[in-house]
Amino acid sequence: MTRLLVIGGSDAGISAGLRARELDPGAEVTLLVADAYPNFSICGIPYHVSGDVPDWRSLAHRSSDDLDKAGLRVRLNHRATAIDAGTHTVTATTPDGTTTTLDYDRLVIGTGAVAVRPPIAGLNQLGPADGLHTLHTMGDTFALLQSVQQRRARSAVIVGAGYIGLEMAEALTTRGLQVTLIEQVNQVMPTIDPELAQPLAEHLQGQDVTVRCATTVHAVTSDGDRLRVDTDATTYEADVVLVVTGVRPDTDLAATAGVTLGVHGAIAVDRQMRTNLPDVFAAGDCVHTYHRLLDRHVYLPLGSTAHKQGRVAGTNALGGEALFAGSLGTQAVKVFDLVAAGTGLRDDHARKAGYDPVTVASTADDHKAYYPGATPVRVRVTGDRRTGRLLGAQLLGTRGAEIAKRIDTYATAISYGASIADIAELDLSYTPPLGSPWDAVQIAATNWQREVTEKR
Amino acid sequence: MTRLLVIGGSDAGISAGLRARELDPGAEVTLLVADAYPNFSICGIPYHVSGDVPDWRSLAHRSSDDLDKAGLRVRLNHRATAIDAGTHTVTATTPDGTTTTLDYDRLVIGTGAVAVRPPIAGLNQLGPADGLHTLHTMGDTFALLQSVQQRRARSAVIVGAGYIGLEMAEALTTRGLQVTLIEQVNQVMPTIDPELAQPLAEHLQGQDVTVRCATTVHAVTSDGDRLRVDTDATTYEADVVLVVTGVRPDTDLAATAGVTLGVHGAIAVDRQMRTNLPDVFAAGDCVHTYHRLLDRHVYLPLGSTAHKQGRVAGTNALGGEALFAGSLGTQAVKVFDLVAAGTGLRDDHARKAGYDPVTVASTADDHKAYYPGATPVRVRVTGDRRTGRLLGAQLLGTRGAEIAKRIDTYATAISYGASIADIAELDLSYTPPLGSPWDAVQIAATNWQREVTEKR
Repeated sequence: MTRLLVIGGSDAGISAGLRARELDPGAEVTLLVADAYPNFSICGIPYHVSGDVPDWRSLAHRSSDDLDKAGLRVRLNHRATAIDAGTHTVTATTPDGTTTTLDYDRLVIGTGAVAVRPPIAGLNQLGPADGLHTLHTMGDTFALLQSVQQRRARSAVIVGAGYIGLEMAEALTTRGLQVTLIEQVNQVMPTIDPELAQPLAEHLQGQDVTVRCATTVHAVTSDGDRLRVDTDATTYEADVVLVVTGVRPDTDLAATAGVTLGVHGAIAVDRQMRTNLPDVFAAGDCVHTYHRLLDRHVYLPLGSTAHKQGRVAGTNALGGEALFAGSLGTQAVKVFDLVAAGTGLRDDHARKAGYDPVTVASTADDHKAYYPGATPVRVRVTGDRRTGRLLGAQLLGTRGAEIAKRIDTYATAISYGASIADIAELDLSYTPPLGSPWDAVQIAATNWQREVTEKR
Repeated sequence: MTRLLVIGGSDAGISAGLRARELDPGAEVTLLVADAYPNFSICGIPYHVSGDVPDWRSLAHRSSDDLDKAGLRVRLNHRATAIDAGTHTVTATTPDGTTTTLDYDRLVIGTGAVAVRPPIAGLNQLGPADGLHTLHTMGDTFALLQSVQQRRARSAVIVGAGYIGLEMAEALTTRGLQVTLIEQVNQVMPTIDPELAQPLAEHLQGQDVTVRCATTVHAVTSDGDRLRVDTDATTYEADVVLVVTGVRPDTDLAATAGVTLGVHGAIAVDRQMRTNLPDVFAAGDCVHTYHRLLDRHVYLPLGSTAHKQGRVAGTNALGGEALFAGSLGTQAVKVFDLVAAGTGLRDDHARKAGYDPVTVASTADDHKAYYPGATPVRVRVTGDRRTGRLLGAQLLGTRGAEIAKRIDTYATAISYGASIADIAELDLSYTPPLGSPWDAVQIAATNWQREVTEKR
């Protein structure tokens, strides 16, 4: 009987535990969860804030009952404080403040990530009580909602226009707040090309969000009531300020125990999700991630990846031989009525990786124009000029335009080393209300060929 | 300067002509179009009948002006009557009834298909004037609409519940007719498994369509006003009867000229879309189609395929070296608020092809259940027990559930010989309003593994 200990109760940890129990219903699987919210969907937080998900309990992928039924021993409010890989023990503080020590045969570290606090003056002096928030846990969520309510907030400044910043801009707007979104670089959603970020920003502005890119926040101060956000351009006032400028891996525990760190300070694991320490695995936002196209590890914390890595860790912790297939950084975000999505490499990353990338832009209807409701899908396809290999794609379109699943076609193709010519030849589905004989993803590929291959 | 002659003005012919002009703007491309409706979307006919597309002219993929601008010489109402491959000439009748002969360097035959008239007593004695219709051309469409209007039709019997029968059931219901849909086999949409066809049939019934499967029509008679449809079960009366029991390739012209026919009586072509005759290519619904998984030719007339084959023919007619990649029979159909889709092989076809197929059913939400509007996606995944290879997939879900593009993920994977295990490892997009960390297509694959691979 294997005793599997998991540190962390989010996507990676729960996936590892469930997989272990699936493979061996006799395995003793214990999870140390630092807070009281195991298996919560961090990605769902904006939708509780917006009011779309009225009951926060709904954000749990599985209820505590489900986890019990799966045979997981979930220890809530247990914070792991030390790992001793030599003696195969983990020390943790319990809810009543005492210390406990747990033995393990195999350990999975799934400590996740913590919100980055950028170097902004005043940030470390302010907190939820002042209306200054970061957002990564259910605790953060409750604190933010409490601020909004108690301060009768009518305005918010969001610092950071990555996908969480965008989702929160929508969420707080939906809640009735006047939102100002500030981003240091010169576009929203820096993970897509400016040509798609621009219409996305315009869409936000059309929804009454004030968008300020290329704007650096220097200081945040409070007069006890409102917050002042000083930027290099001007000063904004708001009832609440939300700082969502990214996350960094939570690795203090692992590093102290002698776990080697890799890219971006994340835990270094191989594709079996093994750390350098015997019987110690790690998965999720705390580890670096194998990138399928780059054939090296990068830091790419995403929920979908955490689930897959957790499953691999759980399999191998039970003696299996699973290999993490790798990520392409595939991502989708809904922002009001638009959806942006991307997969694979953009020009800059592809060039750094030694490719000779060319990106070609196309616009095609999501379905036959004669059928009511057709909307344009903007596509940017990146391919290697020398080999014609598909390297990446980005899409922007309306919410009903099946953008998220269209990016999956590209992601699937890239996984197999597809050429751009292959895309045009795929036998994709067609019916006039939902597509075209050449789907938008194919029209974009054909345009790339026309622009690049056939002009040689 | 190559003189390319194309017989046919639908998807395959137009695609061939456009491709030729794209590759060589000096090529002289002439199209003989039997009617006055070049480049019309046959797949769009149901949406004009329903009223969704009020102006039939919108059904043209491109206007006559577009075709002119592309440099195509379109000869409307020119019916080709003979091909002489020896002298490289085609004889045609012109709109004024005279005969003309055209020389060609290369010929593309894109004569398409004609509606099958099943052996039903009375069928050959009745026609549009009696309210009895088939549906494959714009002429058929106008005739049907005229019948509906002049007969002040309040009821229709549709014979055949393939995808056109289903779309027409929706179209005529939307138009206000009471529709009875009769199908000889014991399910609607015989191209998907009964387990998905059943909820599709129930959905039709919920929309007030009377669905009668396992019912054979023996005779259709007219009393001059209404039509009587005698089946082995009972007799139905209706103001109009629509017979949509499939199509067969239109090959008389080609066969007479010495073109070899292949599967299902369709024109035999290689993957370069060459017929047995020198300089004669063929594409679209009149040819047999290379199946990527079966590695042989089958008869699979689909608009998306016709476009691709036409492009290949056009390329090679100009001296190129394009190869038709092949079809997987990928298909999607919207029926009221549901979408059904499929790709690849189902059990029976897979078994005949020498595979050891297993199909596993799953149901998963289209997106995270906590986000409003989540709906179940039914998935049936077929894989080979011995090799774990993905052979096919079928999906059924609501219109907003991105069913059509989800089938494309499977279709893309099958094209690369994916295993079912691969599907679970794909890096697909995830955002709570549009998906799950494991997308429905992946949950279905994982279930297949659990049921088949891991139970061995």
